[in-house]
Amino acid sequence: MSDIASTPAPMEGHGGYNRSSSVQAAGSSPTLPLFEQAAAAVPLSSSSEAIVIADYGSSEGHNSLAPLTAAISILRGRIGPERAISVVHTDLPGNDFCALFRTLDSNPGSYLRGDAAIFPSAVGRSFYQQILPSSSVSLGWTSWSVQWLSRLPGPIPDQVQVAYSRDAATRAAYAQQAAEDWRNFLTSRGAELRPGGRLVVLTMALRDDGDFGYRAAVETLYEALLDLVGDGMISSEEMGRMAIPTVARSRADLMAPFSENARFAGLSVGHLDIFEGEDRIWEDFQRDRDAHKFGARWAAFSRASVFPTLAEALDGGLDDRQARTFMDKLEAANAARLAEKPEPMVIPLASMVLVKEGC
Amino acid sequence: MSDIASTPAPMEGHGGYNRSSSVQAAGSSPTLPLFEQAAAAVPLSSSSEAIVIADYGSSEGHNSLAPLTAAISILRGRIGPERAISVVHTDLPGNDFCALFRTLDSNPGSYLRGDAAIFPSAVGRSFYQQILPSSSVSLGWTSWSVQWLSRLPGPIPDQVQVAYSRDAATRAAYAQQAAEDWRNFLTSRGAELRPGGRLVVLTMALRDDGDFGYRAAVETLYEALLDLVGDGMISSEEMGRMAIPTVARSRADLMAPFSENARFAGLSVGHLDIFEGEDRIWEDFQRDRDAHKFGARWAAFSRASVFPTLAEALDGGLDDRQARTFMDKLEAANAARLAEKPEPMVIPLASMVLVKEGC
Repeated sequence: MSDIASTPAPMEGHGGYNRSSSVQAAGSSPTLPLFEQAAAAVPLSSSSEAIVIADYGSSEGHNSLAPLTAAISILRGRIGPERAISVVHTDLPGNDFCALFRTLDSNPGSYLRGDAAIFPSAVGRSFYQQILPSSSVSLGWTSWSVQWLSRLPGPIPDQVQVAYSRDAATRAAYAQQAAEDWRNFLTSRGAELRPGGRLVVLTMALRDDGDFGYRAAVETLYEALLDLVGDGMISSEEMGRMAIPTVARSRADLMAPFSENARFAGLSVGHLDIFEGEDRIWEDFQRDRDAHKFGARWAAFSRASVFPTLAEALDGGLDDRQARTFMDKLEAANAARLAEKPEPMVIPLASMVLVKEGC
Repeated sequence: MSDIASTPAPMEGHGGYNRSSSVQAAGSSPTLPLFEQAAAAVPLSSSSEAIVIADYGSSEGHNSLAPLTAAISILRGRIGPERAISVVHTDLPGNDFCALFRTLDSNPGSYLRGDAAIFPSAVGRSFYQQILPSSSVSLGWTSWSVQWLSRLPGPIPDQVQVAYSRDAATRAAYAQQAAEDWRNFLTSRGAELRPGGRLVVLTMALRDDGDFGYRAAVETLYEALLDLVGDGMISSEEMGRMAIPTVARSRADLMAPFSENARFAGLSVGHLDIFEGEDRIWEDFQRDRDAHKFGARWAAFSRASVFPTLAEALDGGLDDRQARTFMDKLEAANAARLAEKPEPMVIPLASMVLVKEGC
């Protein structure tokens, strides 16, 4: 069992993340044109070597298909059908790479369809270090991933999501880890990108007014956990260890490494936008008025993205049979509470384009 | 559930293959010097691009560490410590890539230890097609993998291992599939290797007298399956569907694609040897006279390498709870029978070095 103090749990495997990631997919749409522009602008060598696209924090691959297919289409227009394109999907070692490869093989939207010169691979290592050869990557994409810290800075006394904690020391510890991880991420990508290479980032952000968003989902989750303690399903010690190692970064946080000099790790900022992701669950609710479905979809989102991390804090860990029951009960409780009073959710996001110097 | 008629099951996951593959490891030792010689002889470009080593059919990686570490050491002597080396491990999509990446991260024998310029990745696609860019691979290694057919040619009426079947039509169907797969494998590797690149192959073989070997293990397995039918644990229909899609190739089989011309798919044969693998289980038994351990080790070998394939033929498939019980009972029955009369096992192997033309 991994140690929650040092290693965040992966997304829920066995296709769970592929199935319940429509919130993340919605945020991709407005960022996709940035990736297409990057594919059009990136310098390409005239040699025959493979062009490398990296998908950092791919999870099971589902949400990467549309942006990758779009970028590949633009590259193909520039280089023709023969030249090899290598697509590297990276995630933590515990990621469900079987689901990733099966998605690539069988999903109708897979970029492998109709193109015999694309070669996918996977890297199961943390992206807070260099994991691809220096100057090898032409295009990078990372969506809903750099919000995950490399380690949990510590427990959160009054919440499971630090953004809603009122504990100043805890907030400071998380902010410090977030700043360090962001610098490590940029340093590693700066090494991996080729001269002129581009990296497009989509991540959770703080709105310029400081709002983290997801208020109903986060509050409901915390209340549901308190109820599980009350019911004796989990102990208060277990709940005390539960904390989600994600952070939303402000515009200032994202720009901090670039403050002294316009460049950091050989990278400059070509674009930065803080925007609100489309709330598809609320939009669907406004059409169908199905409160049950509304609650179920947000609960499934929470389950797929953060329940495994919470379950690692159980005495028996994530692999225990108890963990499954815990996640089932927690999902049901969240779904029921959210269905009582459907409301729109604020989904603050940042999109960013980083350009490697030289050419 | 995958269809046994078209897709062989992967090795047993969750570290099972890593733990019970000492037979395969023993065969590697005499082949390792060939891989070292290939690493010393292969032409290396003077550019700074990463040198690519491919490990075809890596399973969970354990048995690849020693040969890869040895080859990397020789390459480092030629190129120095800075230049990037990319190691690509390939296997079927259902392979346990988590175990692979954890092995690379934490095994004391991992080639990642003390070398920051090595970049591992994985490809979860069948190697009976081109899965890496053309002319990208300098060194290839494949051990105990090309004996697995791309598909099951059909049921075996009187055995689960075709080598011990007396049915001529079945033997012919397997031989035809084996010939086709071998040509596809060579064609794909021929495309992937760089000019002058080398591929070292270790695989199950037929001795020059035609012996497949493993007689006690195969006979015991078949008898144990018949007993499970007799006990009502499995039905005769289920047993009828059970067949192991592995083949041992003779010297003539391995050379067949090269018979018309000394070259096939741009490859020439630099070395071919049929030899007998060291029987470590028997050697240990001669020392410790522990018949129980003797039976348990061969049964664990059978379980890790072929039980999941057999379990796919169960009505509920491999993922059924029944499959686990079936494998447990089959392993126990094999262990008990083999312990009754320990004997040495013939382990015929072929080692081969293929050299890509040009330079």
